[in-house]
Parts: sequence; structure tokens; C-alpha cells
Amino acid sequence: MAKRSYAVIGAGGVGGYYGGRLQKAGFDVHYLLRSDYDHVKQHGLRVDSVEGNFVLPEVHAYSSADAMPQCDVVLVTLKTTQNHLLKSIVPPILRNGSIVVLLQNGLGEEDRILQIPGVKRVVAGLAFVCAAKLGPGHIAHQDYGAIRLADHSAAFSDSPAERVADDFRAARIMTEIDPNSSTARWKKLLWNIPFNGLSVVCNSDTAGLVGSPVARELVRGIMSEVVQGAYACGADVPRSLVEAMIETTEKMRPYYPSMKLDFDARRPMELDSMYRTPIDRAKKAGVHMVRTDMLYRELFVLESVHLR
Amino acid sequence: MAKRSYAVIGAGGVGGYYGGRLQKAGFDVHYLLRSDYDHVKQHGLRVDSVEGNFVLPEVHAYSSADAMPQCDVVLVTLKTTQNHLLKSIVPPILRNGSIVVLLQNGLGEEDRILQIPGVKRVVAGLAFVCAAKLGPGHIAHQDYGAIRLADHSAAFSDSPAERVADDFRAARIMTEIDPNSSTARWKKLLWNIPFNGLSVVCNSDTAGLVGSPVARELVRGIMSEVVQGAYACGADVPRSLVEAMIETTEKMRPYYPSMKLDFDARRPMELDSMYRTPIDRAKKAGVHMVRTDMLYRELFVLESVHLR
Repeated sequence: MAKRSYAVIGAGGVGGYYGGRLQKAGFDVHYLLRSDYDHVKQHGLRVDSVEGNFVLPEVHAYSSADAMPQCDVVLVTLKTTQNHLLKSIVPPILRNGSIVVLLQNGLGEEDRILQIPGVKRVVAGLAFVCAAKLGPGHIAHQDYGAIRLADHSAAFSDSPAERVADDFRAARIMTEIDPNSSTARWKKLLWNIPFNGLSVVCNSDTAGLVGSPVARELVRGIMSEVVQGAYACGADVPRSLVEAMIETTEKMRPYYPSMKLDFDARRPMELDSMYRTPIDRAKKAGVHMVRTDMLYRELFVLESVHLR
Repeated sequence: MAKRSYAVIGAGGVGGYYGGRLQKAGFDVHYLLRSDYDHVKQHGLRVDSVEGNFVLPEVHAYSSADAMPQCDVVLVTLKTTQNHLLKSIVPPILRNGSIVVLLQNGLGEEDRILQIPGVKRVVAGLAFVCAAKLGPGHIAHQDYGAIRLADHSAAFSDSPAERVADDFRAARIMTEIDPNSSTARWKKLLWNIPFNGLSVVCNSDTAGLVGSPVARELVRGIMSEVVQGAYACGADVPRSLVEAMIETTEKMRPYYPSMKLDFDARRPMELDSMYRTPIDRAKKAGVHMVRTDMLYRELFVLESVHLR
């Protein structure tokens, strides 16, 4: 059986890195690009990675989804703020049985993508990676790299997530399966909600947010709320993860989370998928995430001033 | 009977404006200055006021408290972050019966000043004024100007607050007496706690903080907590003040609260008196001000990064 083909939608840090790894492992990878199209078409991809640099002088680059072949897997690595574009991008790339993997942060996007005609097999994907685009077609992979995948519905006798995991592992990407997509998403939110938002509001890297008792208690308060919100929404996020994640973050090389990079570059922040949807879902389930709601509103006002 | 003499400690916007008004009305006013001493000694004070500009070519300026005469009233207009200096500044200026007025924001400073030997008559003062120092000896009075005074203890048969109010009114400063210093302080905190901190965290003027439903709800949530904290601490802050203050702020000319000016100028923010003391007192009284505590911690981390 032929190897599965991949469409990568959005070749920023995450898309460029994982797309590059898959292509390097022999998979047929097709990249949809916008501003970087000309450069990548001509020069290919360059990945500076802590696990070994590599260059892909020739890649299949496209400036329009209509020009792309139908693929077995559509890997969405856009920021969720761009997801409104997917309803025109995804359909032409789909064939019968295609799998759509949302390798994104936040919550609720799987349900939204299932509204797009032809989309049936949806996998929630979580990237635990520090990767950034340094320039057109130039990706830096600075740390980590594990992936977690979870089927968003149990409607299929085979597991789309397992199929994609097989490919990722063949590309030597550490990949685990989570049995429940909601649990997987909420676990990642447990870190993202405090550290992304606070890095912007407090103008601080991760070290600043775990480096003093005053800051740690701030992070801890927000995390406790996320655990409660998750629990109310039926996700299984153990309370012990709070201290474990704070400890892990203390040991990490200090860095600025993606939302801080977005803010500083005047790109829109992922406020809806990372804050508003979790807050709304928890509220509907009876938990008022007071601190998370406050952080969301602060970010909202900050963004409205900043992007004005 | 001779007019009361005044010592003004700290001639920033507030001290320069009210000291100037008192002097203009014929009171004997003595200013303790630091960096502005030479300039003010030589050129006096200039006040650009919405109620009429005036110049005081000669003022009694001092660079040390030891050089000052004993005064009937000591008007403290320092930022509370400077209050640790008062234990050496105040005693030489006191005579028997002297009144100390803390024309400052925050909570709890009256109790602290009562620890200083010789300090007996303490008045809580609140300035509802937009005034700023534009340069040495150059004050801008942009808006408002009312004062509220409250005796901090009922230990005296005469009311020190009433005596000071008489003088302020003689200087045509709109002055009211509040029967309870704690109530007076908490009422001002009801505005200061949300607007000062959020102006820094959200990088926004007052208009930005009341100009959208998202922001207004943020302000409202914090204010509701302050009402609860005040109530637990025995202060009488009616809940109806929340909406009244939001409406008043909507009608105000947009401006940056003092904490935002302090932050932008890299001066320390009044975090202890405006946040930590109210939070601690409310907590001791059984009310956990969750949002206020979060805002305090955000400001603390932001300041530690900003002043680094």
C-alpha cells in the first residue's frame, strides 16, 4: 500500500517542522502557502533543529487549495484565528476517507470543522514543541517535539488518529494517542490558559511566571480553575497536573509562549479558541472561571488598544 | 486668632496644587522638596489651572524637614510608596496639637503614621482631582478638585478634619467631611482598584476601560468585589455606587490614572496601599477578593519585569 499523502495548511513553525519531518521520511507532502509561496517554491524548506538540521530543496508548494491534489491527510497548522478560511481551503483537497488533523491550540475547533461539507474524520492534534518561523521557508525547531492525537468521534471502526500516529512515528516523531479529544485539549489548556495570557499581560517569559511566589500563586489560581472547568465539561484532568506542570515549567529553558510572540508581532491572539470557548463551555456546565474570564477580558482590551 | 500654618510634604501635582491654593488664600505654607528645591526656591510655583492660572513667585521652600518651622497642619502628598520616609520627616515639624493629613490613595496608612512618636491627630484625605507636575515648580490642574476629609479617630472633642476643612473652604476648595475614614477610603478604592491597575495591565485610558461591554464587565466584576470587601471591613459602600461610578467615568474626559503615569515613568506603583492592604484586610474579614488579588499579582510581576 502506498504511503499516505499529506496536505499541510499553513507552514509556520509547527507546519514547517512536522511537514518537513514527514517529507524527509518519504511521505508525499503538499504545502499551502501564502506570503512565503514564491520563496518556498524556489528554495524549498530549511529546518534548523535541535535534533539535526536538514534542508528540503524541493517541496510541493501551492498558493491555492484548488491547485492541490486530494490528500489522505489534511494537517491544519494555521493559528485558530485563521480557521474561518478552512471552509474554502479544505473541500478541494478532500477525497473519500480523508482525515483532517487540527494541530492547533484551544478548544471547540473540531466541532466547527465538522460543519464543512465532506469533512468526516477529524483528529484533535496537540504539538508540544517550541518551533518558530525565522523567515520564508526557514524554520527553527528549538525544543521538544512530541505530538498527542485523539479521535474526535468514535464513529469509525478504524481509528484515524492511529493511522496518522503510525505515519508520525515512521517520521520518528514521538507520538501518543489520547483516548479522549476533550481531555487532551483541556490538558493542554491547563498550561496554555495561564502561561499564554499572563506572558502578554505581565510582559514576561515563562521564568518570570514561575520564578516568584507571587507569580506562581497567580498561575496556580488560574490552573485550579481550569481543572474545575475541565472536570465540569467531562474531561479528565487530574488536579496533580497543576503542580507537575508548574515544576516542569520551572525546569524549562525560559521562553515566550506563542501568544506573546503574536502580540508583539501585532498578529491577532487566539482569544476565542483558547479563552472564550473554554470559559463558555465551563459556564454552561456550571463552573464560572472567574480568573480566566478576567484574563480573557484584559487580553481583549489590550488587543483592541494594541491593534488600533 | 492667626491662620493655621501648613507644611506640604511632596510638591507633585496634588501637593503643588492644594498648597498653592492655600498660600494664595493667605495661609502660611512651607514646602518640603527634594529634586525641585533649587528651582522652586528661586522661581516659586506656577499653577496652570482650569479654574484660573496663578503664579506664586515666592514660596517657603526647604530641602530638609529639620530646617522647617513647626506647623499646625502637615499635609502629606507623597505617593504612599514614599511613606517610609515620614518617620524622619514628620517629627521635627510637629508642635503640640498638630494635625497630620494624609492626602493620599490606598488604605491603612493612617494606622502606620500613628506609630510615629508625636503623631496624634490624623485625618484621612482624599483628593478628587486631575493634577500633575509638568516640571519643577510647574503644576497643571486639569480637572475637578474636590477634597473629602475624615477624622481617623474620634479621640478628640474638636474635629481636626473640620478645622482643616474650614481652611480648605477658605481657599475655595470644595471640601466635604466624611464621618468615617474607612468608608471614605474604601469608596475611593472602589474607583482606584479597577481603573488604576487595569490602565496599566490593559495599557488603556479610562475611556478604553468603560468603552466596550467586555471592558465594562471586567471593571464591574472587580468593583463588586471591592463592595464586598468594604462591607466585610465595616465600611459603608453602597452597591449602587458601582454603576454610578462607571457612568461618571464614561462621561469623564479620557485620562490615564496616576498608576499608569507612575508605571510609564518607571516609578514604583502604589501596590501595597492600593491593593495588598485592602486584599489582606478583606481576607481577614472573610472575603477573598479573587479578581483584585489577581490584578495585584499581575501588576507585581509586570513591575518586577519593568523596573528590572
